[in-house]
Amino acid sequence: MRYAVLGTGVVGRTIAGKLSSLGHEVVVGTRDPQATLARTEPDGYGNPPYARWQAEHPQVRVATFADATASAEAVVNATPGLSTLRVLESAGAANLAGKTVIDIANPLDSSRGMPPSLDPVGDDSLGERIQRAFPEAKVVKTLNTMNARIMVDPARVGGAHTVFVSGDDAGAKGAVRDMLMSFGWPADDIIDLGDITTARGAEMLLPIWLRLYGALGHADFNFHIQGAHRSA
Amino acid sequence: MRYAVLGTGVVGRTIAGKLSSLGHEVVVGTRDPQATLARTEPDGYGNPPYARWQAEHPQVRVATFADATASAEAVVNATPGLSTLRVLESAGAANLAGKTVIDIANPLDSSRGMPPSLDPVGDDSLGERIQRAFPEAKVVKTLNTMNARIMVDPARVGGAHTVFVSGDDAGAKGAVRDMLMSFGWPADDIIDLGDITTARGAEMLLPIWLRLYGALGHADFNFHIQGAHRSA
Repeated sequence: MRYAVLGTGVVGRTIAGKLSSLGHEVVVGTRDPQATLARTEPDGYGNPPYARWQAEHPQVRVATFADATASAEAVVNATPGLSTLRVLESAGAANLAGKTVIDIANPLDSSRGMPPSLDPVGDDSLGERIQRAFPEAKVVKTLNTMNARIMVDPARVGGAHTVFVSGDDAGAKGAVRDMLMSFGWPADDIIDLGDITTARGAEMLLPIWLRLYGALGHADFNFHIQGAHRSA
Repeated sequence: MRYAVLGTGVVGRTIAGKLSSLGHEVVVGTRDPQATLARTEPDGYGNPPYARWQAEHPQVRVATFADATASAEAVVNATPGLSTLRVLESAGAANLAGKTVIDIANPLDSSRGMPPSLDPVGDDSLGERIQRAFPEAKVVKTLNTMNARIMVDPARVGGAHTVFVSGDDAGAKGAVRDMLMSFGWPADDIIDLGDITTARGAEMLLPIWLRLYGALGHADFNFHIQGAHRSA
């Protein structure tokens, strides 16, 4: 499969690296590839510059949002949630049409202090906003409820735990399910919540995730729906 | 311990019955005890009238919100979240002062259709509103993230699963922890999220809970934080 992974942060790199290691053709999308590759300083979170990761992953290409998306069969949104709609405009509605858009982002707003809050929250979600803005894309919300390392290596957390899937298109959700299983997710741990409006619930897990991260002091945990598959 | 349980619905009855069975003195609070006892029809959810439950629990008394609260050492809020502040006004700030107020309610608003949405949501929570309105009460948010039968019988769901605690007063949280352990919650499954602002995260679990209830077709599930206690 040919994937575009939009976003050059840790989440984008983690997903791009995993997809590439599984034999897929991966192009990372960024606003300005030359600028992205030219940066030599760590980012605001202390992560090494993208160019260093790129050098270790020569099989992954980097391109503009539009070029990455144009050549892809499926698109992963790993951009900051508050930037996502602008990024996808730049990627181009025509380039997104008919494609599975895997939205793993969260609309976290740090402008009013920490911990960040969600915008939108309640009666709307980032997943729905993407679907409304790009009605010909097949948006599937998933993987937004955990640390990036767990996304691609669920065995990192011992015992069963859950990944949620939300979306309107059954075929796209099936393709995402296949991708998740290729990442190591057991079929029983993938829960289909329903249509894209259920992304509200998945995104609203972030506030307690952030508090748990603070209370536990580490990010190697995940939500598990205990009793989801009852035997009775 | 002398408990007031405010609310005569299934959640209130379940908590009141459990506390009474554990030997506590329990008074159920309601707006108009005579009216509550006079109702002979099932409620809007098809539950039997309160009087039938009362007849099976003769050791539990029913009283006005104010009378129930005045005689109590600790108060459980099991009212509908959108009614809670009015109920607590009726219970009386002086009657609540200095007491542990265990808030197990959710501010679910069905007025804009199903599934219900949260009000407040995002930068506020019912737990915080109660604490602000009654600054001399010691508000602890807990148990709002699961079906009532699981609250008092965690073994109903096989395997480990989690109950969250939020509040500003360490002593009140300790008392709630003791109550939870008396209900059968293992110490390791009780996670202290932090101060009362963390109730936002616990309340924001409701939207995905409601969607999971729909997707799974039963309520015998609970959130479990897998990896919370990592061995490393």
